[in-house]
Amino acid sequence: MDSSVGIVETKIINVVPGDSPLVLACGKSLGPIDVAYEAYGKINDSRDNVILLCHALSGNAHAAGKTSENDKKPGWWDIMIGPGKAIDTDKYYVICTNFLGGCSGTTGAKSINPETKKSYDLDFPFITISDMVKVQKLLLDELGITELLAVVGGSMGGMQVLQWALDYPDMVKSAIVIAATSRLGAQAIAFDAVGRNAILTDKLTGSSCGRGLATARMIGHITYLSEESMRKKFGRGLRNAENYNYDLNSEFSVETYLDHQGQSFVERFDADCYLYITKAMDYFDLSSEYGSLAKAFARAKSKFLLVSFSSDWLFTSAQSEEMVNALVADSKQVSYCNISSPYGHDAFLLEPEALGNLLSGFIKNVHKPYKPVHKTAVAPGGAKRVRVDYDLIESLITPGSRVLDVGCGDGQLLLNLQSDKNISAEGIEVDQALVTECVNKGLNVIHRDVERGLEHYPDGSFDYAVVSQTLQTLTNPKVVFTELLRVARRVVISFPNFAHWRCRAGLFFGGRAPRTKKLPYRWHDTPNVHFLSLKDFEEFCDEVGARVEQKIPVIGNRKSSVSIIPNIFAEQAIYVTSRK
Amino acid sequence: MDSSVGIVETKIINVVPGDSPLVLACGKSLGPIDVAYEAYGKINDSRDNVILLCHALSGNAHAAGKTSENDKKPGWWDIMIGPGKAIDTDKYYVICTNFLGGCSGTTGAKSINPETKKSYDLDFPFITISDMVKVQKLLLDELGITELLAVVGGSMGGMQVLQWALDYPDMVKSAIVIAATSRLGAQAIAFDAVGRNAILTDKLTGSSCGRGLATARMIGHITYLSEESMRKKFGRGLRNAENYNYDLNSEFSVETYLDHQGQSFVERFDADCYLYITKAMDYFDLSSEYGSLAKAFARAKSKFLLVSFSSDWLFTSAQSEEMVNALVADSKQVSYCNISSPYGHDAFLLEPEALGNLLSGFIKNVHKPYKPVHKTAVAPGGAKRVRVDYDLIESLITPGSRVLDVGCGDGQLLLNLQSDKNISAEGIEVDQALVTECVNKGLNVIHRDVERGLEHYPDGSFDYAVVSQTLQTLTNPKVVFTELLRVARRVVISFPNFAHWRCRAGLFFGGRAPRTKKLPYRWHDTPNVHFLSLKDFEEFCDEVGARVEQKIPVIGNRKSSVSIIPNIFAEQAIYVTSRK
Repeated sequence: MDSSVGIVETKIINVVPGDSPLVLACGKSLGPIDVAYEAYGKINDSRDNVILLCHALSGNAHAAGKTSENDKKPGWWDIMIGPGKAIDTDKYYVICTNFLGGCSGTTGAKSINPETKKSYDLDFPFITISDMVKVQKLLLDELGITELLAVVGGSMGGMQVLQWALDYPDMVKSAIVIAATSRLGAQAIAFDAVGRNAILTDKLTGSSCGRGLATARMIGHITYLSEESMRKKFGRGLRNAENYNYDLNSEFSVETYLDHQGQSFVERFDADCYLYITKAMDYFDLSSEYGSLAKAFARAKSKFLLVSFSSDWLFTSAQSEEMVNALVADSKQVSYCNISSPYGHDAFLLEPEALGNLLSGFIKNVHKPYKPVHKTAVAPGGAKRVRVDYDLIESLITPGSRVLDVGCGDGQLLLNLQSDKNISAEGIEVDQALVTECVNKGLNVIHRDVERGLEHYPDGSFDYAVVSQTLQTLTNPKVVFTELLRVARRVVISFPNFAHWRCRAGLFFGGRAPRTKKLPYRWHDTPNVHFLSLKDFEEFCDEVGARVEQKIPVIGNRKSSVSIIPNIFAEQAIYVTSRK
Repeated sequence: MDSSVGIVETKIINVVPGDSPLVLACGKSLGPIDVAYEAYGKINDSRDNVILLCHALSGNAHAAGKTSENDKKPGWWDIMIGPGKAIDTDKYYVICTNFLGGCSGTTGAKSINPETKKSYDLDFPFITISDMVKVQKLLLDELGITELLAVVGGSMGGMQVLQWALDYPDMVKSAIVIAATSRLGAQAIAFDAVGRNAILTDKLTGSSCGRGLATARMIGHITYLSEESMRKKFGRGLRNAENYNYDLNSEFSVETYLDHQGQSFVERFDADCYLYITKAMDYFDLSSEYGSLAKAFARAKSKFLLVSFSSDWLFTSAQSEEMVNALVADSKQVSYCNISSPYGHDAFLLEPEALGNLLSGFIKNVHKPYKPVHKTAVAPGGAKRVRVDYDLIESLITPGSRVLDVGCGDGQLLLNLQSDKNISAEGIEVDQALVTECVNKGLNVIHRDVERGLEHYPDGSFDYAVVSQTLQTLTNPKVVFTELLRVARRVVISFPNFAHWRCRAGLFFGGRAPRTKKLPYRWHDTPNVHFLSLKDFEEFCDEVGARVEQKIPVIGNRKSSVSIIPNIFAEQAIYVTSRK
């Protein structure tokens, strides 16, 4: 395969000698510590192209390529890593390590305890995500790597990424946190606890059949899939029969699938390691470790990309949004995308295109920032929102400002402002494809409905907030406008004028809902759920305590203001407002 | 306690003698069969007040009251059953049986096998929900009961209710199906399978510690609670410490809670029974048993009340809605309410008020139908929708018709039509409190957004569909109108006229968004997301292929039509339309 990294080999090196052990978070010491890792691509001369990859619960260092010509299954993230792939090994040097406590080469519960000359088993000390990251850092020290272009990981891998960004802020240029959380909730802890309970049952009964570990893995698998994906994949299908067996053997397809997953896991994984790793996951809690999520993120200097999946119910979009809100509250550089996917938590392994486009675009821009070029924005053919001429809005923005574009679309206004006025840009956009486009242009963009989440930005975070042709489409314009007046020193708003003479005449003489060039929709299919005139807007400003600093009524594409009775002749208007 | 049924006793009687065993769905025979049951209240002279209660997976016949003066815990649904309670034992005679295969008195895996003189254990035949219902029927035969006012049950109890309605349609006047499903999906089967796997592990290892059953129960408990309720109840709290223990004991509160639930279940339940009961649940599938859900429900003659809970992710609202849609497609009498609750599946045990109001109102009306009284409807003070005078709409409806009120509110229009025109009434309403009110008035009402679900009604199901002051609040009026034209022979629509002269003048001379008596909102807080005039509506009719049969433009509360230039002078209009 052209896009494969080819035949790879897991290397194991010692990073902590036996005679100077590492002190762990639990207080105990551990040494020697070996680390298993793989590396793909080449480090460049400036040594600024290193990507560290962190794996999830049951992963290992073998992320890409094959171990031999006859190897049937490539590494666990081969879909993402390789020449020309999202994590492009033609450009980047990618390192993946088996984490501390794993059972695939790195020191863990199955390693030999130097004191007893037997495997540690349950004498292995308890480890944390922070311990894992420490050990990864020791490996990088050994390899002479001092800067990470990106640390990337999904699920429990994402937790390691977060820890990296907080513990080694100067080393991590960017942190890519996928389908992760800053702490498990009660439900996720409960699933882990039941899995451990099943494993411990085997221990108590002295059974070595591995059924406890299999049970734990089955529970895990249910939480990795969404209800929808299970329904579509298995439904109520029976494995080998038309009718029910009326016995205790597995007969539904989903049962035999889980049996298989459980059994194959027992063959490749260790029950003790599973206990330690799930404990490390349960213990992970940035809020309690640093006092609050905001305090935790205050330490970070990286650019962040957070990605969640719409159907993930193990580490939910809401948990990713909680982190986004804390990062925003800390005025960090953050982009966020909630990828629409039916695959649940496992989507981070199953959505190479949507996820790959985000990752490649984000990493590319961290490595070599995008040069914005001024382009004249035209309203896209099929778009529902008619955009005003951006040039007029641009003329209102002071160079060097911090600008939030609320409903930023493909980011062109922000790019123009970056190119012409050297602004610092942030966007909010509800459309996943447009968010991906913004990320590919190097913009910080948050994927969400603009009616949610503004409350997390600190007072006066921005010099300007721009709301272009969006106000009339909001369910609750008052809440949004009020929040923006708090968040930004000035709010620039444009909207179509519903009291334009064509609308007036259409209703007065024709008795019909307004349709003009700027309001081209029919009454029943318009995205404009509110209609307002210039006069209505000015009254609205009074009501919410906004001062009108500037008012630019516009006809067509003329860049000059309308001077005669604007509420009649303007097709649209741009206002600059601020809090009284 | 006044509202308790007092001291109760579980009775056990034989319903299948050993010498003429019952043939089960699996093909095997079982006998003798004993049934444990309790009964509360008194049967009346006409013997028309009997309610059969079906319990869930781990329940038993002891639903209400106490077994002795010193009994600390009343029956499992004591909050709902008793004098003056939702299931009022002053009015009704309530019977609850332990189902076949249970371990609380009715014959099950722990009963003595007459052939071996030992307990059946895993030699017990496999049972189905249908077998359980057969045995309940045999008990009622013994008791001389031939009519059931209602069969009521939650979760697996709801499955028995469904089976009752299909297997004994002439006996069941009403079926109340709470937090149930017509069949488990792959995810629910998976959870059951993992639980059985844990129990079978104990069997394989010869362990009698009961940890397998405990594990199964822990998994169950996670699925009975919602993520939200677990988060609020336990969060990440630690049981006995400020800091982590760094050992394998349970330390998070949620872990110790599950330990306790698992342990106490082992003390009161039997592992073999658990295997059989979960199998019965997994096997339950009305669609496959009868060919389709519609074919299944075609057998039923009961009135139905279905109730789901918004946060239930085990048996979801969507699964209840699937049944509602099938019932609606069969033109059955059905009411449905999706109760907003944070408690997940367990809500059927934890929402006595919301659930109780529905149950008591529904049962009361099945027992003694409500006499509708004509009341003049006034627009409620705080309501967001301005209702037109119902009398005008009523005058358009032919007596004896079948009428669907889309957005029926408190049901007054339907009640007036019932009282004056003897119509058959159905409603759709999005507000839970109003749905409850309708159920209490004996109306068939479906709790949902009117923009969803119309596609399930057969063509021409109704003589009239009424859409009173709702069209302009819909996101997609075209879809709704088109569906209604298919579903009803005539669609009666009323809406405020946006081209009334006050609106025209307001916009033309004042340059403002319209505000009149019938459109009293401001541009930014109006629930009217669309504005239309009479002219707009007539064009719309052309577009969707509707014929205007009658047009009544109205001013104020005058019951006569406006004759002069209605698109200017009418404040609102009522149209009777039909499909061309």
